[in-house]
Amino acid sequence: MNHYRLTSLAQSLPATVPFVGPETQERQFGRPFKARLGANENVFGPSPKAIEAMAEADHWMYGDPESFELRGALAAHHGTTPDHIIVGEGIDGLLGYLVRLFVGQSDAVVTSDGAYPTFNYHVAGYGGVLHKVPYRDDYEDPEALFAKAAEVNAKLVYLANPDNPMGSWHSGSSLAAAMDHLPDGSLLVLDEAYIDTAPEGTALPLSWDDPRVIRMRTFSKAYGMAGARVGYAIAAPELITAFHKVRNHFGMNRAAQAGALAALADQEWLAQVKAKIVEARNRISAIAQDNGLVALPSAANFVTIDCGRDGAFAKAVLEGLVARGIFVRMPFVAPQNRCIRISCGTPDQLDLLASELPSVLNHAKIS
Amino acid sequence: MNHYRLTSLAQSLPATVPFVGPETQERQFGRPFKARLGANENVFGPSPKAIEAMAEADHWMYGDPESFELRGALAAHHGTTPDHIIVGEGIDGLLGYLVRLFVGQSDAVVTSDGAYPTFNYHVAGYGGVLHKVPYRDDYEDPEALFAKAAEVNAKLVYLANPDNPMGSWHSGSSLAAAMDHLPDGSLLVLDEAYIDTAPEGTALPLSWDDPRVIRMRTFSKAYGMAGARVGYAIAAPELITAFHKVRNHFGMNRAAQAGALAALADQEWLAQVKAKIVEARNRISAIAQDNGLVALPSAANFVTIDCGRDGAFAKAVLEGLVARGIFVRMPFVAPQNRCIRISCGTPDQLDLLASELPSVLNHAKIS
Repeated sequence: MNHYRLTSLAQSLPATVPFVGPETQERQFGRPFKARLGANENVFGPSPKAIEAMAEADHWMYGDPESFELRGALAAHHGTTPDHIIVGEGIDGLLGYLVRLFVGQSDAVVTSDGAYPTFNYHVAGYGGVLHKVPYRDDYEDPEALFAKAAEVNAKLVYLANPDNPMGSWHSGSSLAAAMDHLPDGSLLVLDEAYIDTAPEGTALPLSWDDPRVIRMRTFSKAYGMAGARVGYAIAAPELITAFHKVRNHFGMNRAAQAGALAALADQEWLAQVKAKIVEARNRISAIAQDNGLVALPSAANFVTIDCGRDGAFAKAVLEGLVARGIFVRMPFVAPQNRCIRISCGTPDQLDLLASELPSVLNHAKIS
Repeated sequence: MNHYRLTSLAQSLPATVPFVGPETQERQFGRPFKARLGANENVFGPSPKAIEAMAEADHWMYGDPESFELRGALAAHHGTTPDHIIVGEGIDGLLGYLVRLFVGQSDAVVTSDGAYPTFNYHVAGYGGVLHKVPYRDDYEDPEALFAKAAEVNAKLVYLANPDNPMGSWHSGSSLAAAMDHLPDGSLLVLDEAYIDTAPEGTALPLSWDDPRVIRMRTFSKAYGMAGARVGYAIAAPELITAFHKVRNHFGMNRAAQAGALAALADQEWLAQVKAKIVEARNRISAIAQDNGLVALPSAANFVTIDCGRDGAFAKAVLEGLVARGIFVRMPFVAPQNRCIRISCGTPDQLDLLASELPSVLNHAKIS
């Protein structure tokens, strides 16, 4: 950066990407994937009513900067008020705003080692210092996270429930109990992106006004609208108001706002998608078992499969699948990186997985 | 903020909105506007091919984080390389990233007094100090801006060409000549949102590799896709790379990427929209003249009308139009606030303007 007077923080940051997109890999291979099962997207797609709403949107108009109707509908859905809700450009966007609001140079933040890289990217991007706590038996470990938060005086503690990339989950009540140990001055950033596919009782059973937590939700997973970029956060109004200090007010895509509104109204569609996701989870588990592998229990729209050896072996399995046109991902950090992570697919896509996995495993074992 | 440990910068910021959206006003009035001519949207809308591409997008997939195809098409369109181009969530989003990269606490930034408020919002949001230079005869004043930049050691200098809210413009060659006075170490942020409706020769005729400038373009204006949120910046690759340090990689709406690609390919549609915009500009000027007012020359998709008195009078005219269902806006700062700003509308919408303006003016004069 000879010509440009970036801030010293910006100078210190690498140009990076938290995830390589599947399109990037497709360009490298020179062909499209046959099964796109790596990004925890929802192959069953959004409600046809949402698709229709997006198609009929007036694209020439800016979106409503207040997302008034969507916030109203979300408030009714969750039994709270619109002042408890901020709508943003996916959870990624909202995490960025939240980190910006809280984290300055050298501020401490706690997360699990191997949890969501985009959160880490935001923390680094604002000069924060990440303290990482290991998973415990493939579960994020609230007690250890909160103990670390107390130790380092963390401003934010990130926890995903259900977890990505492991698919594991805590009951809402056990998480609520663990929060007794969240230190004063630490805010729990509870990423509930996968809550819609989790068992009853997984959502945190605390008041939306609880000042200790902000909950992140999305239309990208069970609602099948990852491309639309609609996330929201629910917290006490005092915290929600702070987003209006920094957010990109006209950042929301107008069609996406309309689509999310329609998707939320079509709970029937959501219910049948959830059923398909459960079926797909069961099928992926069965395929793992047929191949002598162990599928971890999952409350999310993906299943994480223990490949039974080390990270190098799991990587070989992943690369074998990718080479055969099946896009999957894997955890980054040991010992979780003994696994691969497969998003719920259609029956045809999982047939392909079932037919390719044996030879992929054989090849990985002898290489 | 009792419960929340925001950064000291975040604590100091007001919760604000750079612009009140028309939907907010409609909710206040309890009825929709008859003519939405205040946000410089494009009532003629996007290419039908863009609409079709957005309708047919696979909303369940995340967008390509590289915007590879769109950057490639833009590079071909502008005769440069994809490495010179960053695609983002509207110019607003890109301005936010740019300010974040350059502006830390107390860093100096220069703009015109009364220019784009969202840029100012970002500068304040990162702790920068804005230095404002007056317009000269309703034109932004490059010489004064660059002299101020030298005086205060500005990291960024913002200039819109054509200008919003005045519609005035400089020839590209005169701007290029003025840049001889841009101090070393100051980056010109050239907002060319309205370039597509400007006369030939308005774009800056300098190499895309010129390290002194970054140019902002958008699909929100002439391309008619404000709701889609697709902007891009063109600059030397060294600067473009810096965006990858801070941007929201998966922030782009997938349908919007496809829509922008289709819109760019349909230059025929763009040409006929531009012709309609010229017609509408002429019509708005004629309506102004019929009412004894002076329309300023405009290179943008709006016309700014000098109401001939002070800001209070122009505000009364604006409020009269708004009360009659015609959404318009006005400059914020004297003496430009003697004007109102009217976006190009359909013939029907401008008929309504023509029929309502005389009584609105009469009422404003006697009130």
